[in-house]
Amino acid sequence: MDGSDHLAHERSKAQFDVEKMKIVWAGSLYAFQVSNQIARLVAGDPAFRKENRAVLSRKELFKNTLRKAAHAWKRITELGLSEEEASWLRFYVDELSYAYVHWGMFVPAIKGSGTEEQQNKWLPLATNMQIIGTYAQTELGHGSNVRGLETTSNFDPKTDEFIIHSPTLTSSKWWPGGLGKIATHAVVYARLITDGQDHGVHGFIVQLRSLDDHLPLPGITVGDIGMKFGSGAFNSLDNGFVRFDHVHIPRNQMLMRVSQVTREGKYVHSNVPRQLVYGAMVYVRQIIVVDASIALSRAVCIAARYSAVRRQFGSENHEISGTGVETQVIDYKTQQSRLFPLLASAYAFRFIGEWLKWLYTDLTQKLEANDFSTLPEAHACTAGLKSLTTSAAADGIEECRKLCGGHGYLSSSGLPELYAVFVPACTYEGDNIVLLLQVARFLMKTISKLPSGRNYELSGATAYMGHMEHYLIKYSCNVQKAEDWLKPNTILEAFEARAIRMCFACAQNLTKFADQSEGFSELSTDLVEAAIAHCQLIVVSKFIEKLQQNIEGNGVKQQLETLCYIYALHLIHKNSGDFLSTGSLKPKQASLANDQLRSLYAKVRPNVIALVDAFNYSDHFLGSVLGCYDGNVYPKLYEEARKDPLNDSVVADGYGEYIQPLLNQQLLNARL
Amino acid sequence: MDGSDHLAHERSKAQFDVEKMKIVWAGSLYAFQVSNQIARLVAGDPAFRKENRAVLSRKELFKNTLRKAAHAWKRITELGLSEEEASWLRFYVDELSYAYVHWGMFVPAIKGSGTEEQQNKWLPLATNMQIIGTYAQTELGHGSNVRGLETTSNFDPKTDEFIIHSPTLTSSKWWPGGLGKIATHAVVYARLITDGQDHGVHGFIVQLRSLDDHLPLPGITVGDIGMKFGSGAFNSLDNGFVRFDHVHIPRNQMLMRVSQVTREGKYVHSNVPRQLVYGAMVYVRQIIVVDASIALSRAVCIAARYSAVRRQFGSENHEISGTGVETQVIDYKTQQSRLFPLLASAYAFRFIGEWLKWLYTDLTQKLEANDFSTLPEAHACTAGLKSLTTSAAADGIEECRKLCGGHGYLSSSGLPELYAVFVPACTYEGDNIVLLLQVARFLMKTISKLPSGRNYELSGATAYMGHMEHYLIKYSCNVQKAEDWLKPNTILEAFEARAIRMCFACAQNLTKFADQSEGFSELSTDLVEAAIAHCQLIVVSKFIEKLQQNIEGNGVKQQLETLCYIYALHLIHKNSGDFLSTGSLKPKQASLANDQLRSLYAKVRPNVIALVDAFNYSDHFLGSVLGCYDGNVYPKLYEEARKDPLNDSVVADGYGEYIQPLLNQQLLNARL
Repeated sequence: MDGSDHLAHERSKAQFDVEKMKIVWAGSLYAFQVSNQIARLVAGDPAFRKENRAVLSRKELFKNTLRKAAHAWKRITELGLSEEEASWLRFYVDELSYAYVHWGMFVPAIKGSGTEEQQNKWLPLATNMQIIGTYAQTELGHGSNVRGLETTSNFDPKTDEFIIHSPTLTSSKWWPGGLGKIATHAVVYARLITDGQDHGVHGFIVQLRSLDDHLPLPGITVGDIGMKFGSGAFNSLDNGFVRFDHVHIPRNQMLMRVSQVTREGKYVHSNVPRQLVYGAMVYVRQIIVVDASIALSRAVCIAARYSAVRRQFGSENHEISGTGVETQVIDYKTQQSRLFPLLASAYAFRFIGEWLKWLYTDLTQKLEANDFSTLPEAHACTAGLKSLTTSAAADGIEECRKLCGGHGYLSSSGLPELYAVFVPACTYEGDNIVLLLQVARFLMKTISKLPSGRNYELSGATAYMGHMEHYLIKYSCNVQKAEDWLKPNTILEAFEARAIRMCFACAQNLTKFADQSEGFSELSTDLVEAAIAHCQLIVVSKFIEKLQQNIEGNGVKQQLETLCYIYALHLIHKNSGDFLSTGSLKPKQASLANDQLRSLYAKVRPNVIALVDAFNYSDHFLGSVLGCYDGNVYPKLYEEARKDPLNDSVVADGYGEYIQPLLNQQLLNARL
Repeated sequence: MDGSDHLAHERSKAQFDVEKMKIVWAGSLYAFQVSNQIARLVAGDPAFRKENRAVLSRKELFKNTLRKAAHAWKRITELGLSEEEASWLRFYVDELSYAYVHWGMFVPAIKGSGTEEQQNKWLPLATNMQIIGTYAQTELGHGSNVRGLETTSNFDPKTDEFIIHSPTLTSSKWWPGGLGKIATHAVVYARLITDGQDHGVHGFIVQLRSLDDHLPLPGITVGDIGMKFGSGAFNSLDNGFVRFDHVHIPRNQMLMRVSQVTREGKYVHSNVPRQLVYGAMVYVRQIIVVDASIALSRAVCIAARYSAVRRQFGSENHEISGTGVETQVIDYKTQQSRLFPLLASAYAFRFIGEWLKWLYTDLTQKLEANDFSTLPEAHACTAGLKSLTTSAAADGIEECRKLCGGHGYLSSSGLPELYAVFVPACTYEGDNIVLLLQVARFLMKTISKLPSGRNYELSGATAYMGHMEHYLIKYSCNVQKAEDWLKPNTILEAFEARAIRMCFACAQNLTKFADQSEGFSELSTDLVEAAIAHCQLIVVSKFIEKLQQNIEGNGVKQQLETLCYIYALHLIHKNSGDFLSTGSLKPKQASLANDQLRSLYAKVRPNVIALVDAFNYSDHFLGSVLGCYDGNVYPKLYEEARKDPLNDSVVADGYGEYIQPLLNQQLLNARL
């Protein structure tokens, strides 16, 4: 490699302080410093190299992941890293293993649902990794509908034990990560049955494998569920199945913080509120929103850098003579109109993730003080935003891949694996459509409670619904020229009007049904669209709120303003049907939004490479030849290609058996 | 497996003759019979089994593909199959190999661009597979812009040879399938230079490897470009690179049908028209449209069957008690509104593919008679429809995967590989956005030629533009109730009005720019949207035309009518912004289209499984546990999972090195 920076010219054009933007992206100076330090640690450790991931066979990949996970834990222990630092380290290792499920789901499940006594027993074992845990909820035949789970946990008062059992094939636990080959323990969700009575689904700590020889314990059939989307990606993780044949566990391994079974087999509730369970859901989904911003920003970083490196077509002169320099792909308006809204979305999702983190903290404090008033709203918010951001990020990653042309299809671009790793977020922790229906249900309930005909005080992200009358009757957008779109309030009002009008239309149509649940089912597609309108409004409004804060750094706030307008106006363009059909905008105004969008693309263009540099992703973390920092793409593509195992020999393995006889017309006699 | 048909109840509900629909889908009774016979042949031959594809390492996969390709050729020879039958056989083998490139690109290139003498020499070698060829056009630094290619072919009058050379790294040929490890020959595109003069890009037959020992010939550096998106998928094919270091070839290996270099080194044109090259592009893209309908229909078949098998949630009663039967997922309106338009699209794309086949035949006859009048329109048509159908099919496959919930993410669902194999069609043979810009350029040219202020006779798919005045001034949609949308003309007019108005607005805005090429660049996003509107209209109008033909079979035409309305009305809903902003529809009318769509979903629902059965795909070809014909999904999922190599041993390979020391807190002393 020549060592020079092929993107230096792009970087010199930036009109803002990139170092300060890095801090804004990280969330704080402290967050920047910690993450930056750990990122360098990981990137500099050859044990964590990952570029061969796509060519490894399933077994090789899996074993290599076990090695990395062990090395990571060794480094965490050696360096005495804090829990936060350890979690950054796992993040930058960037390879899915049992460790993610252990720390991200097993430990939190015990913390959230275990009694103090249970926590005292199990947490030290888990946090020292003397046991490895997984979280076994979904079953072969049951995903979204937790209440449909079939696994049973029958209390046997004679032995003071629960008997965990899989009564059918479809009740096999299916999907838990780390379950297939590694986990020694699991939190298993099963129908609690005492004295023939079904009390619904509860969690139980079940040991799966011997701590001596790692063999499955009696009555337990466990294994891996097989290959998944992509090469590399989730195949480094042993998502597994388990079937229980009357497995006995002590009574005190039911997670008893909220409800308990007594020695006598009586089912009783503790005074800990059930609602805490929803708090845990808010926590997990909030983290997924942050993941969405990270995954999307990685893809945008790769696509932006390569679009600045890559040249195609150019002046007419060039086309004829074959000389001269072609145009940078990033200068094509069609490329900009696809890439720049995704850049803006990455920032928007970053800030909404930050806000959700605050929302979760606020919620937890309230729940602990027995104040459940904001729970439904917070739950709807995170459910909706998880859905919105993961769908947009998954689609956005694929769009970024396509923006890289043919080379985006190569594993060395990093984009195929990025997509394969991220896209299940659209399905896990609540299918995105099911979540939007939950949001819609909440919105319809909110509207039904509004006293008709006057304004009403509502808190949180539905506050605007208090102005229903204004938006249904009086509101009209006052945009008359393209520049009028550069006012936060104008944008906010248009989004509020659209969301309210769509929600109100659904509520009106629902009243036409005698049976509400039939109506809800019949109108579910419209309800989903209304929920999306509500969620997009939240993202736009929180981006605008962010800009009202004090933001340091020369030109930093100006760039974020531009991105905020791009985010909002591209949504207006993409969803113009909603805005026009509800009369929230006139066709001319929608068209002016589009004109303004074009100007904004030109405005942000010189800053794009610096705006992706601000993500502060190392070449190791990005894992993309196309997205490398120095932009020296082509020699690296060539070098990566040569490493493919097929290039180990000049003549391909199989030539003698399958090609030579064919070329020599001797195939009919060959044994194949 | 229990042998019973779990979807029998669904099949019994069908209101049409499925066997007759199979013939409609296949295109003719003959096409049905041939394809059906070959499909059974392949499905019944254990040498063609493919379910282990995802777990194989790159080298294993590649070698296994060589075996299948050889076996396929052996069977083709043994059975004396016709070229058409042989091509069906390769299709059903369903595994990308050098054979596809050899037959699909190398042979046609020689047929299309070789002189009679050249064809007489090379075609027998190629069709007997005594040589294996590839098609080397794209370069590491050059994809869409063919005129930017850097490889040179310098004529040396002393030796009567061309000297093929790669002057830079970026001029390395990059991507050709079969090139990496197998092809013995290639049609190489290079800048022809005689006496220092550059005549632009021409094709040359270059031998790459020795026919004796398969080693690359002197001056040739060749290899595989590495792993690509997904497991299995294109990784069975050796997409390759090649660099030429002054490689000499005889003068008569330039493909000389259109232009020639004489013994003296003079560059001369033959009397064969250049336009034939565009005919070849129309041919290739027409085939890709057919591919799109096949790929999408496979995904729809899988998603539809599994949606009928899978049950989630249900009556309130069920949710509480855990008893009772949950609702079939296919009965949820949100599932229907995502799946049924894709089913309709699969049929729509099938018919547009059929029409394009006719268009190509018609065009070829005209070109051979030196009539080039319909070429620009035919070229724009196929370019636009290639773009429209491949984008919709790729997105549709992913949507189908998501419609299968978590299990769609498993390789055994067949959907991940289906996506990975199909999605490059959005990029190869013309990037989809670049193609839409070509369509837009054609549309703007068409409009600029229209005499203003009066109707004008235009032929082909732009005929409606002759009614510009009517649509710009007089037209208004007369829909007043939902049923009014069930009139083909009403639909057609709405699509025509929208397309004309969008095109006209672009044309008007272009006039505001002094520099037309600057205007075209500045407005390119709007132009792309106008081109899409035009292409959607073509698909809708050809579907409607299809229904005006005589279609045999009880209820068959009725089903197709329903699908046609679903296709058109879902486009209206999805693109309502276009229809409303151009005033082609009023908000109320768009909303009525949506109401009608809901009724159509209910109408088609009982027929959905039979409509996907009509694709006549064997379980072998589908390659999906979720989409299996008998719907006995769960035992098959379990069986497939157990085959994963990770399940070969009870305790995972790596336990001793990486898990045991960790659990025993002995990691710090371990060598990792």
